[in-house]
Amino acid sequence: MNKMKIVVDMLGGDLGIAATYSGLEAFIASHPDVEIYAVGTANVLNSLKNVKVIDANQNVKMDAHAMELLHDKESSMAKAFETLNKENADAIVSCGGTGALLTFASIKVKKLDNVLRPALVSPIPTLKEGKKTLLLDLGANNENKVEELVSFAKMAKVYYEAVYGKDPSIALLSNGTEEGKGSPLIQETHKVLKEAKLEGFVGNIESSELLKGNIDIVVTDGFTGNIALKAIEGTGNVVKFLLKDMFKKSLKNKLAYLLVKKDLKKKLTMLSSKPLGGAMFIGLKKVVVKAHGNSDAIAFKNALETAYRSVKGDLVGKISEGASHE
Amino acid sequence: MNKMKIVVDMLGGDLGIAATYSGLEAFIASHPDVEIYAVGTANVLNSLKNVKVIDANQNVKMDAHAMELLHDKESSMAKAFETLNKENADAIVSCGGTGALLTFASIKVKKLDNVLRPALVSPIPTLKEGKKTLLLDLGANNENKVEELVSFAKMAKVYYEAVYGKDPSIALLSNGTEEGKGSPLIQETHKVLKEAKLEGFVGNIESSELLKGNIDIVVTDGFTGNIALKAIEGTGNVVKFLLKDMFKKSLKNKLAYLLVKKDLKKKLTMLSSKPLGGAMFIGLKKVVVKAHGNSDAIAFKNALETAYRSVKGDLVGKISEGASHE
Repeated sequence: MNKMKIVVDMLGGDLGIAATYSGLEAFIASHPDVEIYAVGTANVLNSLKNVKVIDANQNVKMDAHAMELLHDKESSMAKAFETLNKENADAIVSCGGTGALLTFASIKVKKLDNVLRPALVSPIPTLKEGKKTLLLDLGANNENKVEELVSFAKMAKVYYEAVYGKDPSIALLSNGTEEGKGSPLIQETHKVLKEAKLEGFVGNIESSELLKGNIDIVVTDGFTGNIALKAIEGTGNVVKFLLKDMFKKSLKNKLAYLLVKKDLKKKLTMLSSKPLGGAMFIGLKKVVVKAHGNSDAIAFKNALETAYRSVKGDLVGKISEGASHE
Repeated sequence: MNKMKIVVDMLGGDLGIAATYSGLEAFIASHPDVEIYAVGTANVLNSLKNVKVIDANQNVKMDAHAMELLHDKESSMAKAFETLNKENADAIVSCGGTGALLTFASIKVKKLDNVLRPALVSPIPTLKEGKKTLLLDLGANNENKVEELVSFAKMAKVYYEAVYGKDPSIALLSNGTEEGKGSPLIQETHKVLKEAKLEGFVGNIESSELLKGNIDIVVTDGFTGNIALKAIEGTGNVVKFLLKDMFKKSLKNKLAYLLVKKDLKKKLTMLSSKPLGGAMFIGLKKVVVKAHGNSDAIAFKNALETAYRSVKGDLVGKISEGASHE
């Protein structure tokens, strides 16, 4: 078997190349079997051993339109996708902007023939330690049809089995748990999944239950998924802000902070998406992993691990076989 | 001027009649000018002074279908709506189930002629002390059209001005702040509100920004609003659970808890919807206030205050005049 090849876009993250460098270095140490193509500032990356360096010095533009993005061939993301195709690599990992990554992935990688629409999927944190819930679509689509949601459920099921090695439970995100609840889109999708007897399908889940970790896969359209995910992230950030404010308020509170500091950090990390290995754009002919924009070294290493496990588990081949919408 | 009349459904809350009793008692103490019709266990309520008591001993059924609800004339909610119409009262307040309240309100109260669809609106907590953001629709509708969202924006604007006495800023909930972002529904509504030059309209807001308190009114369809609100509530509850767990973990942590207990409670209350006075079903011919199901006395009193302020501000009259969809 040929060596696995992963292309790594080292620029575009909020914390700069120092974070991605350390993350990649740690990944390489535990995966000497992977061929790495690192795209970024060459005079920094050259000190990494056993890595092919492609020099690039520009971040991809945020909020640029598709045409603009594709014309700008100098960004590290553009060069990374060029490398992905030229070297026929298996996976690409980037912490550059989601919009730009979706544009490049759609045009440069192409979707699998049997897939209606690719989707952005990510593990979200849960109350159960070590337990991950996959949520999709998170914004690759603005609007979805019933058959697309059905296909998302099937793709995510394949993803879960390939990456976590277990049969998942699957639910639809809705505004009530009963069968008749939800937007017309959700009501109809519920009916189709039930009639199709999709293995693991358990019905609807409300967004208040998302973080409890009782369901393995939660399916929704791209618009709603994005709203739910950002509401969770936003609330988490507000809580951190309130706690910080409180612990700084008085000498007494500062003392309390010193007493709980370590445990508090651990608990709040449970609510952070950083340790979860990034989001993934599934339904394409290659593995495309989106690391969080503010990834530190650990988060970036975890994103690389996600790419690695997905290639090892033959995610692309399995979605190609198993998640047909027919 | 006639005395203001408010009908109060005393049953159906998670904490029972003790909580609603104390809440109503406190409200009456500060509002001797209001005529109260209290619907619930008469031998409890008879000890309240200056209150007309309507005996009822059954909670409204949860998750019952509309026909079933309307046939069950013995529930406190059914009797409360009967009283509302019989006494030609101005407002009704209940902490019974949202679905049941929406059903009764739609059928027994009727919508205003110029309103396309009523909406459930609620203040949500924000980081800015004392600052409230109104979010709507929260689930009165499963699906909405462009002209309905436009009408929600106008109704909420009238509500905000009538109840808070200020001109509000208004935004659409979307998956990106730029004008072209969002589901087709949001994109089109954005265009219409911009062309209509609706005063206060500032564009889109992402759900991660909802709790920051920068916008006074956030408009979305009922399905999305319900998802966003419950994601926020769910995350808040998870955080409380994690913190509780942490503070109980060791003697050291218990000590820390004692040091910050008071301030912590204050901060977490900022994230709770209890102090906010309940949700409101607007676009109807009477004021209909939904107190939180787990309302304690303070929350219930605040819901009564919301009803009071809405009647005082002539909310129904103003929506009838000012929020026409034409």
